[in-house]
Amino acid sequence: MSNPSRVDETLLTPLLYLERSAQVFGEKTAIVHGSRRISYREMAEHTTRLARALQSSGIRPGDRVAYLCPNIPEMLMAHFGVPLARAVLVAINTRLSGQEIAYILSHSGAKLLVADTELLPAAALHLGGCPDLEEVITIDELGIEPSVDSAPYSEFLERGSDDPLPWRVDDEFRTISINYTSGTTGRPKGVMYTHRGAYLNAMCEVVHSGFDRDSAYLWTLPMFHCNGWCTTWGVTAVGGRHVCLRAVRPDRIWSLIRSEGISHLNGAPTVLVGMANHPAARRLDAPLTVTTAGAPPSPTIIGQMEELGAKVVHVYGLTETYGPYTVCETQEDWAAHPAEERARLLARQGVAMVGADPIRVVDAEMNDIPRDGETMGEVVMRGNIVMSGYYDNPAATEEAFRGGWFHSGDLAVWHPDGYIELRDRAKDIIISGGENISTIEVEQAVVSHPAVLEGAVVAMPHEYWGERPKAFVVLKEGQSAKPEEIIAHVRDRLAHFKAPDLVEILEALPKTSTGKVQKYVLRRELWEGKGKNIN
Amino acid sequence: MSNPSRVDETLLTPLLYLERSAQVFGEKTAIVHGSRRISYREMAEHTTRLARALQSSGIRPGDRVAYLCPNIPEMLMAHFGVPLARAVLVAINTRLSGQEIAYILSHSGAKLLVADTELLPAAALHLGGCPDLEEVITIDELGIEPSVDSAPYSEFLERGSDDPLPWRVDDEFRTISINYTSGTTGRPKGVMYTHRGAYLNAMCEVVHSGFDRDSAYLWTLPMFHCNGWCTTWGVTAVGGRHVCLRAVRPDRIWSLIRSEGISHLNGAPTVLVGMANHPAARRLDAPLTVTTAGAPPSPTIIGQMEELGAKVVHVYGLTETYGPYTVCETQEDWAAHPAEERARLLARQGVAMVGADPIRVVDAEMNDIPRDGETMGEVVMRGNIVMSGYYDNPAATEEAFRGGWFHSGDLAVWHPDGYIELRDRAKDIIISGGENISTIEVEQAVVSHPAVLEGAVVAMPHEYWGERPKAFVVLKEGQSAKPEEIIAHVRDRLAHFKAPDLVEILEALPKTSTGKVQKYVLRRELWEGKGKNIN
Repeated sequence: MSNPSRVDETLLTPLLYLERSAQVFGEKTAIVHGSRRISYREMAEHTTRLARALQSSGIRPGDRVAYLCPNIPEMLMAHFGVPLARAVLVAINTRLSGQEIAYILSHSGAKLLVADTELLPAAALHLGGCPDLEEVITIDELGIEPSVDSAPYSEFLERGSDDPLPWRVDDEFRTISINYTSGTTGRPKGVMYTHRGAYLNAMCEVVHSGFDRDSAYLWTLPMFHCNGWCTTWGVTAVGGRHVCLRAVRPDRIWSLIRSEGISHLNGAPTVLVGMANHPAARRLDAPLTVTTAGAPPSPTIIGQMEELGAKVVHVYGLTETYGPYTVCETQEDWAAHPAEERARLLARQGVAMVGADPIRVVDAEMNDIPRDGETMGEVVMRGNIVMSGYYDNPAATEEAFRGGWFHSGDLAVWHPDGYIELRDRAKDIIISGGENISTIEVEQAVVSHPAVLEGAVVAMPHEYWGERPKAFVVLKEGQSAKPEEIIAHVRDRLAHFKAPDLVEILEALPKTSTGKVQKYVLRRELWEGKGKNIN
Repeated sequence: MSNPSRVDETLLTPLLYLERSAQVFGEKTAIVHGSRRISYREMAEHTTRLARALQSSGIRPGDRVAYLCPNIPEMLMAHFGVPLARAVLVAINTRLSGQEIAYILSHSGAKLLVADTELLPAAALHLGGCPDLEEVITIDELGIEPSVDSAPYSEFLERGSDDPLPWRVDDEFRTISINYTSGTTGRPKGVMYTHRGAYLNAMCEVVHSGFDRDSAYLWTLPMFHCNGWCTTWGVTAVGGRHVCLRAVRPDRIWSLIRSEGISHLNGAPTVLVGMANHPAARRLDAPLTVTTAGAPPSPTIIGQMEELGAKVVHVYGLTETYGPYTVCETQEDWAAHPAEERARLLARQGVAMVGADPIRVVDAEMNDIPRDGETMGEVVMRGNIVMSGYYDNPAATEEAFRGGWFHSGDLAVWHPDGYIELRDRAKDIIISGGENISTIEVEQAVVSHPAVLEGAVVAMPHEYWGERPKAFVVLKEGQSAKPEEIIAHVRDRLAHFKAPDLVEILEALPKTSTGKVQKYVLRRELWEGKGKNIN
């Protein structure tokens, strides 16, 4: 791709953002974590040392380095240090079960895992099954003894040096990170991001969230989610201040908004609901932009947030699109509408962001559907804000990219004003508090119960989480099991948030003539009167 | 460069910005010009029709199309319509002489010229000498009969159609425009911009000026100047409102600020001086960001603008860098400084913009000079914000790009905080008794005198010292000051050897169309008969 002799070309990589902020805002605070304050100069120094330590530990260009950490400074700095070593960051969802974590470590072939000692026990028993994993490095913030053989992070860093590495890449399409998503077929797929895509999407976040050097960004969104929607890189680009947060609790959010002068935070609507309904909620003294995705914010929560003085930006995307791909741009004439109408307009997923290709909603033959607000089609995307593919999974990549477009699996209507609005999901996915849950994975856990003959899991509407799994099961003849036993059985096997809230025992599942379970029949009753089948 | 089968790549071009804004902000006002209002939908339609009309007129991909127009909507839309036809825009400085215009038309090989009938007479006599020029299209806003054989713009547009053209390019490095420099030595050179560079620099302008969909941008900066510092594309990217301006007059600026709710304008410090000292100047009711370049703004004018309530963003660059390359980022602790010190810090050219490679100041061997605020070196740049080269001039390109960096010819010191500060153009420095004197530094001291409106300092020959500074000043209306008072004022502020030996009071300074003082005109007289301009 690159022609090194060109004076007019620098290949795009978010590493350039840290290079610049360290030069321009060297003594400015880059990261706040409790009483810790890290300047941009220190952030760049730490990043170099980390990259050098990775090299000294045998990490070579293209190798995968996994992180299992909450939103702490080391997790943020890994977004620069790992790519600076030309390696690939695999930030693992901290809520997964040990088996799930081990699968990701194995599939990605990660050679090194950096883990927080609070989170390590979940994975510890399963690490033996990861053939490529050579070493575990542990970060201990809470005084918790590491549960596996490992080197402390501080000692690991000592393997590094301050010898600078170039903040430059030789290929914009080099993979910068792999983010695992819950696939419909149960097994997570590794979504590959490129340096170019990360650079451009980070710039989109800057433009649409309105970040600048005075911004103070609160890390309510997990960094393992699409690399924090590329905001890890975007806030750094403008020299803003990252405010870390180990655990997302509304009281802590409110106290940090005040003590740190938070101007921006991102999160699923559930985070907003938690904030707005907390006793500490009080009208804001200074502007706060809250960017939300994962489910459409309800008119109620939009109204509540606006009453508190916050501006709500609604975005939509998938792991495959670096997080946000669309934004619900507000129009000048919306201000004249009553609050409820405005909230309804704002609850739509909207239009492509400035760096994204125009979004389309298509029928089965890839023709645009009518923009009538009624016809449903599949949302498809392409361009710089789309992944380069699934890691080590050409079949899934080809399937996702059929026809030259990324198929989201989300079903939407297209309004006459060009805004899309999600109505349903082709994929068997439940989105609960912004987290994807594969219904198939849950079904597999349900039917592994010895008394269960067959089962189907669908999303049911939930006021707080948006959606929660509900299981319908048929028991084997002569066998019995109580719903709570089945739920407990699933909780032993999967991350707890994936277990169904409800289990209903049926005589038989509704099926098509060819024997396929008609999930839409099960869903229909749960969503009656909602006008849509997802939240 | 491009791999059309990649789902994860869209080649960068600012055409994508208009595609999006037409889709997202179709009915929003894109352009205001007197009583004309053009929506984004109409702007995109006009752009398509223009591109189709160019094609029908024989313009082929890569052909050059020249414009000689003030800041009117047609000039703005040419920034999209010409590249949409895959042609190259050559926007000509409207204040050049007929011979200079003809040189540019000939050198660029433009096949078609679109000219405003008010500006055409200057060029008319010389068009016969442009062998490639096939046709002239005229725009008549003022009821002025075209002075050459030509087709009216409206008839020309009728050759086009509404048949869409793709807002996509097959090569990011395709030339989008050629901007001729007003080189003081020799013939103007044609600076080539690429689609990629224009896209990325436009995004820099968005970030550093803080444009968003609510912005109203007043076109005080000529669009022929680096394509309006890429703001033609940048304001369009976010769906802001362009407010056109045929002639830049302070009274008109003040009235539009109020009537159109202007939030942003760009201009040389002379434009700011005109604004701040106009009787209509009054404290602003709403935020106004004024981005200035072309010369360092004096502490005096920065102070005046801030008192009026405007935020001054100081940027620096050259035609060869798409306009701005650096920005003087303000630091948190500057707020605590006294106003004069803040203004002094802000008068520096600063640091690279977010999309630019780090700027360097180098000695003759291309080594970085010490960051001591005293040593002078040459400013060099490279990367996405640097031109692809001079059109049809490989020798000049090679010379400008020697060592793999673009050589600005500007001399600067590098401060310990990493900010650069221009001390002179290589040719404008005064060497007095072996000591370097920055004319800019002396000028700032001169204009800080309360009676002085503006001033220019040049070298005059001196028998003993070789060269000595002479100041030419224009006094504020109704104010008076004797030359010796101004000299004493400077001696109070600078090392005595830097104070001008002579001060001459003028009615006006000679200026270029973009407001730059023509120092060579002032110098010429002083050095007449010497056979050289330095000692």
